[in-house]
Amino acid sequence: MLDELAEKVVQGDRRALARLITRVESRDVKIAQVMAEIYEKKGNADIIGITGPPGAGKSTMTDRLTTIYRGRGRKVGIVAIDPSSPFSGGALLGDRIRMNRHATDPDVFIRSLGSRGSRGGLSRATREVTALMDVCGFDVIIVETVGVGQTELDIMDLAHSVVVVFVPESGDVVQTMKAGLTEIADLFVVNKSDRPGADLLERELQGMIEMSVRCDWAIPVVRTVAVKDEGMTTVVEHLDAHRKYLTTCKKDPDALGRMRLVQFGEVVSGLIQDLVEDSTGAEGLLGKLAGQVYNGTLNPYAAAQKMLTDPEMLRELFKGDGC
Amino acid sequence: MLDELAEKVVQGDRRALARLITRVESRDVKIAQVMAEIYEKKGNADIIGITGPPGAGKSTMTDRLTTIYRGRGRKVGIVAIDPSSPFSGGALLGDRIRMNRHATDPDVFIRSLGSRGSRGGLSRATREVTALMDVCGFDVIIVETVGVGQTELDIMDLAHSVVVVFVPESGDVVQTMKAGLTEIADLFVVNKSDRPGADLLERELQGMIEMSVRCDWAIPVVRTVAVKDEGMTTVVEHLDAHRKYLTTCKKDPDALGRMRLVQFGEVVSGLIQDLVEDSTGAEGLLGKLAGQVYNGTLNPYAAAQKMLTDPEMLRELFKGDGC
Repeated sequence: MLDELAEKVVQGDRRALARLITRVESRDVKIAQVMAEIYEKKGNADIIGITGPPGAGKSTMTDRLTTIYRGRGRKVGIVAIDPSSPFSGGALLGDRIRMNRHATDPDVFIRSLGSRGSRGGLSRATREVTALMDVCGFDVIIVETVGVGQTELDIMDLAHSVVVVFVPESGDVVQTMKAGLTEIADLFVVNKSDRPGADLLERELQGMIEMSVRCDWAIPVVRTVAVKDEGMTTVVEHLDAHRKYLTTCKKDPDALGRMRLVQFGEVVSGLIQDLVEDSTGAEGLLGKLAGQVYNGTLNPYAAAQKMLTDPEMLRELFKGDGC
Repeated sequence: MLDELAEKVVQGDRRALARLITRVESRDVKIAQVMAEIYEKKGNADIIGITGPPGAGKSTMTDRLTTIYRGRGRKVGIVAIDPSSPFSGGALLGDRIRMNRHATDPDVFIRSLGSRGSRGGLSRATREVTALMDVCGFDVIIVETVGVGQTELDIMDLAHSVVVVFVPESGDVVQTMKAGLTEIADLFVVNKSDRPGADLLERELQGMIEMSVRCDWAIPVVRTVAVKDEGMTTVVEHLDAHRKYLTTCKKDPDALGRMRLVQFGEVVSGLIQDLVEDSTGAEGLLGKLAGQVYNGTLNPYAAAQKMLTDPEMLRELFKGDGC
C-alpha cells in the first residue's frame, strides 16, 4: 500500500511531488519502501539527457526544447543537476532565472538537484526523481547536467536519448573525450554555431562518428543557435527518430539485466552508506564502531571488516525499522 | 598478519605494488582485509591533486613537477585518472607517452586508473592506490584527473593540496564553477599563459578569491608555461608552503571525524555493491534475488527491501569468507 503522499503523486499532485522529491534529496531511508511501490506504477516517459561542457548553452537548449514539447501538448519535467558545488549543495541561479518563463506553467515541473553527501548519491537521487516525475504524469523528462565528468556520464545512463552540446570552442574537450563521447551521445549539437570554428568542430565530430563502433544508429550532428531558436526543431526531430529507433530495435537482454543489477547494488549500498554516515551518536554496536572510526582509533577498512562479519551487528542494523 | 604480497609492498617492492594495485582495480573483495592492515603502516606521503578542464596541460604539469621532486631526491608516485571513458576502462595514451621519460626511473611509479564498474568505485580505488604507494615508500604522490565534474572533486578530497589548472580560454568554466572552485583549490595555475587572455583570467580568479570565505590560506594564482618549464618552481614553492600551513594549522576534529565516517561508509557500501553486481548465477538467497532483478520480475527497490530485512540472507552473505 502506498503512503498518502505517494498516492497523491500518482494522482498527479504537484505539491505532493515536490514534497516527495525533498524526501529523496534528504536521503530519508524510508523512501526505499515508497520507491519499491512507485516503481510498479511507472509509465513510459521519454527521458532526454542534455550534457556538455560549461558554457555550451545547455540551459537555453532545455528551455527551448520545453517550449517545443509544450507546444505539442506534452507535460515536461526538468531535472537540472548542478554537481559543480558539492559544498553548498545549491543550484545555479542562472538556470533558475532562464527557466522562469516556464515556472508558472502548471504542466512544467522544474527541480534542481545539488550534490549533497557522497558519491553515487546524486546519480541515485536523479533516477528516483525522474521515476517520481514519470509516475506523476510528466511525458517528457529533461535531465540537464553541467560538465563532462564521470558523475555526469553515470547520470546519463538513465536517459533514453542523450544530447551532448558543444560550442565551436570545444575542440579541446572533444579531443580529450573522444571514444567516450560517441559511446554516450545519441545526438551531437554544435550550439552557438554562428561563432567561428563551427565548421571545424563539426568535421571533428563527424570524423569521430565515422570511426566509432555503434553501427545501428548514426549519430546526427546538428548546428544550432539556441538563443535565437535556430535548429531547435531539427534537434527535436532527431530525438523523435531516436526514440522510435529505441522502440523498434532489439535490446540486448543481458545488458538490460546487468543494468538492473547495478541499480540494485546502488540502492542497497546507498542505504548502507547513509546508515553509516549518520551513525555518530547512534546507539548499539554500529554507534560504537562509528565512534571508533570517528576518533581515528579504528581505520575504515578494519571497521568494515568488523561490521560485515558480525552477525549480531547486521541483525541490529536491519531489524526492519530502518528500511 | 599481512599476506605475502602486502608484506613485499611494505618492503618497497615495485612489482608487488603493481600486483596489489591490480587486485584493487579488479575489486577483489579480499583486498579489504589487506587494506585494513596496510592502513596501520601508512607513512606521511604528500598527496598533491591536479585537476582542471581538458586540455589545460595537467599531464605536462605532472611531468614537470615530477622532475622537480626527483631533483630533490624524493620518490614520486603518480596516479593518472581517466574517467572520460567509462566504457573501455582505458587510460589516455597521450598521458603515458608524455610520462615516458620518467618510466625508466625506479623511483617513479606511474599508474593509470580507468573507470570500471560503478559510481564511487573510482574514488575508492584512488584512495586505496595512494595508500599502497605511500606504504611502498613513495614520498610525493600526484593524483591527476581530467575534468571538473563531481567525481573529480570527490577524488580531490584525499589530496593534501589541490592545484586547479586553467588555460586563458577557461573563462566559461571558471564562471560556471565559481564558489565550488575556491572551496576545493589550494592553488590556481593559469597555464599556457603566453596565450592572449591570461591577464583577464587571472583577474577573474583573483576576484573570486577575494570573495571567498576561506580566511587562513590565501589561494595563490601562478602563471605558468609548463611545456617551457616557466613558473614550475613557483608552483612547487607554493605547494611546500601549503603543506607547511597544513601541519601548523589546527584541523577541525569534527570535519576529520566525519571524513573518516564517509570513508567507512564508502568501503562497506562498496563491498556490498560489488557483491550484488557479481551475484548473477550465485548460489543461495542472493543469487535467487539477483536473478529476479536481472529478469525484471522484481524492481531494484523491492529487492533492496527484501535483502536488508531478511536476516537469513544477511547471515549467508556475510558469513565471513567473502570479506
